[in-house]
Amino acid sequence: MAPGIPDEFFIRGQVPMTKEEVRAVTLAKGKLFPEAIVYDLGSGTGSIAIEAALLAPRGRVYAYERNPEAVSLIKQNRDRFEVTNLEILCKEAPQGLEELPKAHTVFIGGSGGRLREILAKSLAKLQPKGRIVLNAITLETLQTGLAFAREENLKVEAVTLSVSRLEEIGKSHWWKALNPINIITLIKEE
Amino acid sequence: MAPGIPDEFFIRGQVPMTKEEVRAVTLAKGKLFPEAIVYDLGSGTGSIAIEAALLAPRGRVYAYERNPEAVSLIKQNRDRFEVTNLEILCKEAPQGLEELPKAHTVFIGGSGGRLREILAKSLAKLQPKGRIVLNAITLETLQTGLAFAREENLKVEAVTLSVSRLEEIGKSHWWKALNPINIITLIKEE
Amino acid sequence: MAPGIPDEFFIRGQVPMTKEEVRAVTLAKGKLFPEAIVYDLGSGTGSIAIEAALLAPRGRVYAYERNPEAVSLIKQNRDRFEVTNLEILCKEAPQGLEELPKAHTVFIGGSGGRLREILAKSLAKLQPKGRIVLNAITLETLQTGLAFAREENLKVEAVTLSVSRLEEIGKSHWWKALNPINIITLIKEE
Amino acid sequence: MAPGIPDEFFIRGQVPMTKEEVRAVTLAKGKLFPEAIVYDLGSGTGSIAIEAALLAPRGRVYAYERNPEAVSLIKQNRDRFEVTNLEILCKEAPQGLEELPKAHTVFIGGSGGRLREILAKSLAKLQPKGRIVLNAITLETLQTGLAFAREENLKVEAVTLSVSRLEEIGKSHWWKALNPINIITLIKEE
Repeated sequence: MAPGIPDEFFIRGQVPMTKEEVRAVTLAKGKLFPEAIVYDLGSGTGSIAIEAALLAPRGRVYAYERNPEAVSLIKQNRDRFEVTNLEILCKEAPQGLEELPKAHTVFIGGSGGRLREILAKSLAKLQPKGRIVLNAITLETLQTGLAFAREENLKVEAVTLSVSRLEEIGKSHWWKALNPINIITLIKEE
Repeated sequence: MAPGIPDEFFIRGQVPMTKEEVRAVTLAKGKLFPEAIVYDLGSGTGSIAIEAALLAPRGRVYAYERNPEAVSLIKQNRDRFEVTNLEILCKEAPQGLEELPKAHTVFIGGSGGRLREILAKSLAKLQPKGRIVLNAITLETLQTGLAFAREENLKVEAVTLSVSRLEEIGKSHWWKALNPINIITLIKEE
Repeated sequence: MAPGIPDEFFIRGQVPMTKEEVRAVTLAKGKLFPEAIVYDLGSGTGSIAIEAALLAPRGRVYAYERNPEAVSLIKQNRDRFEVTNLEILCKEAPQGLEELPKAHTVFIGGSGGRLREILAKSLAKLQPKGRIVLNAITLETLQTGLAFAREENLKVEAVTLSVSRLEEIGKSHWWKALNPINIITLIKEE
Repeated sequence: MAPGIPDEFFIRGQVPMTKEEVRAVTLAKGKLFPEAIVYDLGSGTGSIAIEAALLAPRGRVYAYERNPEAVSLIKQNRDRFEVTNLEILCKEAPQGLEELPKAHTVFIGGSGGRLREILAKSLAKLQPKGRIVLNAITLETLQTGLAFAREENLKVEAVTLSVSRLEEIGKSHWWKALNPINIITLIKEE
């Protein structure tokens, strides 16, 4: 299995999942490589963590997720896709980050209101040239991410992604819009 | 090197290149796997072909490109990313497709006005459950792709992708819009 | 009352209504003037017809709507905004168009599958330099509109409008996307 | 002449102009009426001021523009559209606002870095139920507008507008994206 897993292949339950197209761009922004160490903070169904693990077969992915129901889904998905380099932690980030090996890429999907602290602790654990990739659906998350980059003098790349999906209505087709999302990449330069 | 190569890593010359975000979603729609056989028709700088080759290390990618200047770029990029499973054909698609092994995924990026013929010959060479992923910037390409799917009774998934990039102007930031692109996936069901 | 009436001022019932932003752009594309003769075909709640009537106080607006429940809403809205130059016809377009005075602007919002016939009869009733403004949510309506323009040698201006609205979620804000709509303006040149 | 003047009807010179579609939505958000008092701060070519003056024939529009070249364009456009209720002030807002009659609607298009002061002085001059409509192309302007609304306890409606225009390339058509713009409406409730 290579990345590009369609949404419907994941076991989901009631847990919200990053949409296929957003996941693809998010992973691309992470610039993974086969030996990469990756954190996925606020992992949800684990869809990003699992694709990251497939892209870094000789590396290791640490998925943080505080919701036990979601953790159970990540485990089921890990089994389904036969991923062996994914460690699942039922904790709230950034608790215990300091014990992990340094990361090349940190994905942040959910932050439960502690985003600034998570960003600071992630940066402290980031390898030189490492990347933090933040998915922001709210204005406030976007602002916090950009303000953090400015204070810490990080390079920033940010995009807004708007996806519409073709749907049938009767004999006709129309575009159904998904909500726009900001994908913010913070790069530690030295 | 895993997929998610930034645009600026590719050698480009004057040849237009699929943007990073579009490339990521296009590749994800291709649902590649390590042994996949892939065609990339109208390969341009080869950015999709090269990432596909990295995602299918035990498979093979055939890149068609009729412009010799572009072919030279694809070769340089193949060397730069140390890709060994990418064959570059300086031909106009669909010429010679019949001699290739059957494909799991066909990417179509440029068609020089022969799109319907290319779609038909691609479908003839497609494995069961194989996918044709068509990048359409024009209305006419979108229409041809959807009409072809209807006639051939293929499953269709189509999205419009709109990307805006954050840019600095003075001390402020604004979103610079890229043109929207349609990514159409045609799936051979049986 | 001048145009720019917010959605919530209209009496609506269960009838779908053109969104405020789409209505504003649609009306602007119609290039109305105080004496304009206007048709609004598939008038729904009458929101476009009423704003058109306000913009053409010495002209006249003919609203076609086949659904009696919707016709009753248009009447209520006509009373609410004290519009006196709006005639409401409970008919399916293009039935009876030939009896109306020639139009400077024709708005087409709904077509019930008879779009090509409606376009042809509208064009036949259009003043020189007159405009047909077509709101298309489906690909098929867009294609029919563009094909008609090509055959009849009309000038075309088409835009896709994507609107997102800021909403509060808890203490945060996010953008809620409305579905994109095409607004196609066909201009009779001579 | 009623509103919905196409861009190409305005005399423009080198001064940037609000695009037709953005102008239409901006004016609609202003909820003008025939007797409205309107300020247009940072008026540019005057396209919003002139359409506002047409929508408020028994009201009055005050256009602020500090660039003398732009002021000359506004005057030419005022003559072209035979507008008589538009006063043009070659000043930098908010200088001299206190001397004007109270406004029902304030449009803010350009702010030269003094946005917060302009917002505060505009609010002080606003009629009950009056509206400030702010066109924001930068993130910073959006943030300032929303923060001001929160502090002053104003009702906010904000939209992002993304417009793409159909263009011909050879025998084909594609959508050319304009940059997204935020239109923020601040409403004084009591």
